[in-house]
Amino acid sequence: MSADRAATLARSELGARLARVREEMKKERLDALFVGHGADLEYLLGVDRRIHYFGATHFFGEWAVGAVIRADGDPLLLVPRHMAEFHFDVSGDPPKMRVFTEMEDPKVVMREAFGVAPSSIGVNLDAPAELVLALQDLFPKTPVSLAADLLARVRAVKSEAELDAMREACHIADTVFDESLEQVRPELTEFDLAAWIVKRMKELGAVDQSFDTAIFAMGAQESRPASERLSRRPLGHDISVSYDFGAALAGYCSDFGRTIYIGKPSARFRAAHDAVVGSQAAGAAALQPGARACDVDAAARKVIADAGFGDHFRHRLGHAIGKDVHEAPYLDVVDTTPLKAGMTFTIEPSIFITGEFGTRIEDVYVVTGNGGVRLNKARNELVTV
Amino acid sequence: MSADRAATLARSELGARLARVREEMKKERLDALFVGHGADLEYLLGVDRRIHYFGATHFFGEWAVGAVIRADGDPLLLVPRHMAEFHFDVSGDPPKMRVFTEMEDPKVVMREAFGVAPSSIGVNLDAPAELVLALQDLFPKTPVSLAADLLARVRAVKSEAELDAMREACHIADTVFDESLEQVRPELTEFDLAAWIVKRMKELGAVDQSFDTAIFAMGAQESRPASERLSRRPLGHDISVSYDFGAALAGYCSDFGRTIYIGKPSARFRAAHDAVVGSQAAGAAALQPGARACDVDAAARKVIADAGFGDHFRHRLGHAIGKDVHEAPYLDVVDTTPLKAGMTFTIEPSIFITGEFGTRIEDVYVVTGNGGVRLNKARNELVTV
Repeated sequence: MSADRAATLARSELGARLARVREEMKKERLDALFVGHGADLEYLLGVDRRIHYFGATHFFGEWAVGAVIRADGDPLLLVPRHMAEFHFDVSGDPPKMRVFTEMEDPKVVMREAFGVAPSSIGVNLDAPAELVLALQDLFPKTPVSLAADLLARVRAVKSEAELDAMREACHIADTVFDESLEQVRPELTEFDLAAWIVKRMKELGAVDQSFDTAIFAMGAQESRPASERLSRRPLGHDISVSYDFGAALAGYCSDFGRTIYIGKPSARFRAAHDAVVGSQAAGAAALQPGARACDVDAAARKVIADAGFGDHFRHRLGHAIGKDVHEAPYLDVVDTTPLKAGMTFTIEPSIFITGEFGTRIEDVYVVTGNGGVRLNKARNELVTV
Repeated sequence: MSADRAATLARSELGARLARVREEMKKERLDALFVGHGADLEYLLGVDRRIHYFGATHFFGEWAVGAVIRADGDPLLLVPRHMAEFHFDVSGDPPKMRVFTEMEDPKVVMREAFGVAPSSIGVNLDAPAELVLALQDLFPKTPVSLAADLLARVRAVKSEAELDAMREACHIADTVFDESLEQVRPELTEFDLAAWIVKRMKELGAVDQSFDTAIFAMGAQESRPASERLSRRPLGHDISVSYDFGAALAGYCSDFGRTIYIGKPSARFRAAHDAVVGSQAAGAAALQPGARACDVDAAARKVIADAGFGDHFRHRLGHAIGKDVHEAPYLDVVDTTPLKAGMTFTIEPSIFITGEFGTRIEDVYVVTGNGGVRLNKARNELVTV
C-alpha cells in the first residue's frame, strides 16, 4: 500500500538524517556503509521496509538489496528487477538506483556499485550473513564491521516530525484500548479480543499492528506462564487481563500496555498494580538527559522491590522505540548509554505471578529536560469490569 | 500461542531431519553448523520461529540465539534469559539449552558452546551479519561460509507429515476464497476484503496469514501498477480483482491466488485468463522428477507467449514453499536445480496490464512421477460477480 504506508515524513528530513550518518562515519573513520533492506534504509532513503510476516519470501539477489553510502555523492541503491517492479515502494523522489536482472551476478553488480575499493565498510544491524561474506570476498583487504551502534545513535534522537508520527501511533493504541473495554466480557476469547484490536487499529488508520497483539489473562483459574501471550481460551472471571499491542503508522511504531481486572480484585492485586504505576512514574522522572539507561531501570525497579514484588519483575524496564518496536538503547541492568533529549522509550514495569495474577502498564515517553513526557494519553488507573 | 502454534509435526521427524543435515555436512566436509533463530531452527529443533511483523523487536544477545550443530552429539541451543522466559516456545521436549544472562558476554558463551575449535563453520540463510563477524573473531583460522544451499536442499523435499500440514494450510485458503465470494460487492474496499480474509483464516485455525494479504483490482477505472497490492479504495465495477494470500498452520505456509471479475469480462480478458489457466496446467505437467526448475518456467511461459501476452508475464512462474513462503529452488529463468519427488512449488502465472486488467492464479503442487499434484482444491474456472 505505497500511498497509505508513507514510510517517511517530510522529504527534507532524509537529507538531514544522511548528513548525521555521514558525520558519525567521519568520526569513526568509516569509509563506506552498506545499508540493507529494512528500517535503516527506510529511515535514510525513504524506501519502505521489507516485512516478513510468518513466512519469509526469499528471492534472487536479496542479500544485495540496499544502498552504498560513501562520504560524498548520492547513495546508490541496488535492487533486483523483480523487486523493483513488484515489491518496492519509495516515498517521494526515488533515490539513485541500479536495477539488476536475474541474468546478472549480484556480486559483480555490488563490486561496480562501490567503484573505488573502500578502506573500511560498515554494515547495518539487519544485514544478512551473505552480505558480509560477499563483501569480504570482493574486498579481501577491507575490514568489514557492524555499524549497528552508529545507526542506532542517529536514529535514537527523534525530530519533531517523528514525534508527531509516534504520537499519532500512540493515539490509535489509546483509542482502541478505551473502545475495547466495551467489548470485554468473560466469555470473549483472548484471540477474538486481539483480532478485534488489530481490525480496529487498521480502521483508525494504522498500516498494521506494529507487533503481534498479545492478550493474556492470569489468575487462579488460569495459571499460564507469562510467556504464553495469547490463547484461544475465554478471558474468564476473577482474573487480570493484560494487553500488549501497538499501531504502525507512517513508518513509526507504538507499543502500549494496560492490565484490567474482571471481577473484584484482591488487596494484593491492588498493591501490585499500585507498585507498577509508581514504578512507571519513577522511571519517567528519571528519564533525564545525561542519565544512564541502566539508572532509569534501577529507579523504577526499586519501587517494585520496595513493595515486595521484586522477584516478579523479570523484564527489562523498557526499550527505545521508533521505526522499530525494540530499538537500542535499552532500559535494562547493563546498558550504560547516556540519554539525550528527544530519545523515546517505553516504560513498562510488570509483576507476573503465575497462578495468582499479572499486572503491567506500558507507555511511550520522550526524554526532556523535565523528565520523560508521555506520548500516550490513555488513563492508567485500574479498570475493573 | 505455544500450544496452538505447534511449530513442528511428529517429534520423530526432527531426528530424521537432523540426520539428513549431518549427512549433507559430511558430504561438504563442513565441521560445524550454526543455525540462527528462524525457520531453519524450527525445522531442526522444534523451536518456534521468531516473527518480526512491522517493527523489529531487538534485544540483548539476539545475534547469538541459535544452535551449534556438530557431526556428533546433541545440538546445543543458546538462548538469552529474557527470551527463554518470555519469548521461546518449543514443541515437545526442549533441546539441550545454554541460557545466558545480561551479565554474561554472548561471545564468551558462544566460544564455550563450540568447545573444540571447528575446522569450518556454516551459517544459515537467516543468520545476521553480527554472527559471522563474531565467529570470525572467535575462530580467526576457521573459514565461515553460507550453508543456505545445504539447508534448502534438505528442507525442499517434504515428508508425508509435512505435506499433510501444507494440505491443511491450502484447504483453509481454498475455503476462505470460496466463502469470500459472498462478501464481494463493488462498494467493498480492498482493505476490508483483505481484513475479512485474515480474520476468517484465523477462525478456521490458521495461526496467522503466511504473508501480507493482497487484494488488487485492475481495470480501465483503476490503472494501478501491479506493485500496489492493496489499497483502501472500493473494488469498483467492470474490473478484475486478484487475490494473493495464504494461511500459516503448524509451522507451514500456503500461498494461493485467484482472479475474479466484477461485471462482464471482455473477450480479451477471457483469452488472457484462459492463457493463465493453460500456463498453469503446462507448468504442472512439467513438474517431474529430474526436470530443471528453469524448464518448468519455460514450459508455462510458452503458453502465455503463444497467446500473445508474453510481455505482460513479468514474474517468475513460482517458488518452493514449506515453512517459508518463498523457499529455494525457484521456478524462474536461471535456476537449474533438478527437481525431486516430494518438492513443493507454487505455480502462479500472471498477465498484468495496467489500465486494462490483471489475471493470475496460484496453487501449490507437489512433484511426483506423474507430474505436479495440486494440494489445493479450489476451482479455477473464472468466477464473475
